[in-house]
Amino acid sequence: MNIAKLQQRLREFTAERDWDQFHSPKNLAMALTSEAGELAEVFQWMSEDQSRTLDESSTNMAAAKEELADVMIYLLRLTDVLHINLEEAVNENIALNEAKYPVGVSRGNATKYNRR
Amino acid sequence: MNIAKLQQRLREFTAERDWDQFHSPKNLAMALTSEAGELAEVFQWMSEDQSRTLDESSTNMAAAKEELADVMIYLLRLTDVLHINLEEAVNENIALNEAKYPVGVSRGNATKYNRR
Amino acid sequence: MNIAKLQQRLREFTAERDWDQFHSPKNLAMALTSEAGELAEVFQWMSEDQSRTLDESSTNMAAAKEELADVMIYLLRLTDVLHINLEEAVNENIALNEAKYPVGVSRGNATKYNRR
Amino acid sequence: MNIAKLQQRLREFTAERDWDQFHSPKNLAMALTSEAGELAEVFQWMSEDQSRTLDESSTNMAAAKEELADVMIYLLRLTDVLHINLEEAVNENIALNEAKYPVGVSRGNATKYNRR
Repeated sequence: MNIAKLQQRLREFTAERDWDQFHSPKNLAMALTSEAGELAEVFQWMSEDQSRTLDESSTNMAAAKEELADVMIYLLRLTDVLHINLEEAVNENIALNEAKYPVGVSRGNATKYNRR
Repeated sequence: MNIAKLQQRLREFTAERDWDQFHSPKNLAMALTSEAGELAEVFQWMSEDQSRTLDESSTNMAAAKEELADVMIYLLRLTDVLHINLEEAVNENIALNEAKYPVGVSRGNATKYNRR
Repeated sequence: MNIAKLQQRLREFTAERDWDQFHSPKNLAMALTSEAGELAEVFQWMSEDQSRTLDESSTNMAAAKEELADVMIYLLRLTDVLHINLEEAVNENIALNEAKYPVGVSRGNATKYNRR
Repeated sequence: MNIAKLQQRLREFTAERDWDQFHSPKNLAMALTSEAGELAEVFQWMSEDQSRTLDESSTNMAAAKEELADVMIYLLRLTDVLHINLEEAVNENIALNEAKYPVGVSRGNATKYNRR
């Protein structure tokens, strides 16, 4: 995925509409949580099994795709305006998680996963 | 960003810990909303101006980076298990938004942005 | 529940700390979504069955209680600063839902519940 | 506010539609986060000042009222199915916050409020 190119496209989209005034990191973070809420809405009454066997051509799959893309759009905008390298940040967090959840003790262990 | 490679790394991370049983799309969507909530927490008491002028080396910037990476990790997992092409989905949504918010009428117009 | 009394207690708590400057409706809405995210975190890796049979004295039940109270606190603050009558608003929405989901067609129907 | 009466009304609403099967605590928590996301959507592009001076008869005020009521509805359902005393929980959290944010050191201090 060409992150820089997508961010450039979104930057132009925003500038053409004079929307930079609305795109403070605070507002973009808030917009990302709204989109995450819409993603949750797609899955909220489904069983886990139903969510695992969604038909590729179902309305719910199309809705999930759309909401995931909207979350990604705000992620791209936020990392752009905050000058964060998203790929680097992801690799750092995975490394941290590897240390935090060692294979031995975390195997099949949901509780490890739970609240601090 | 090499999406396929990051998804592969996360797939191995999950398999090694036998966590696929927890990674239903429903649960991953729920985890993504938790991370979005933690992102919101970073910005909730800041003014928009403060969010625009965050110091690169501040605790808040580090926290924003970490939470954005966590959101991205669940986005990568979700698009992987649902077989969604994230880049394609993003481009489709941008195209839809270009049609929905024509430059002329949307210029500097926050209300266009508001609730259906 | 004495809503007015709780709102009065929270109003004093806020005024004593000179926090009204932070409690704009926008910020309070953002704080409410953070707390909702923490509530989601409690349940995200649990099965539905596990969530139905939570032990009254478990850490997860204590966490759920705490997060639900935090959501309520921001709900009380928001309805206070916006001069919204919460009980009236709830009754109106239930009435709307009764019209929207007639017993006959909605019986046991999860799809009715799904996306617009 | 007569919590018990509202919970009874919602319990009947749910039973008449045979929706108890969908109302696991996990699903209700997910639905609450969706509604919190819709609340965030109302305020995301507004300035803090605009959110403080919302007109009582505006579309945004009506939307805020509706979303706050929806959050409350899921809060009522969740505390009902989990047998949590919401008023008690709120009072406990306020007492904890009073201890956590002593008036002296917290006065006008946004950073106290920030991330752990």
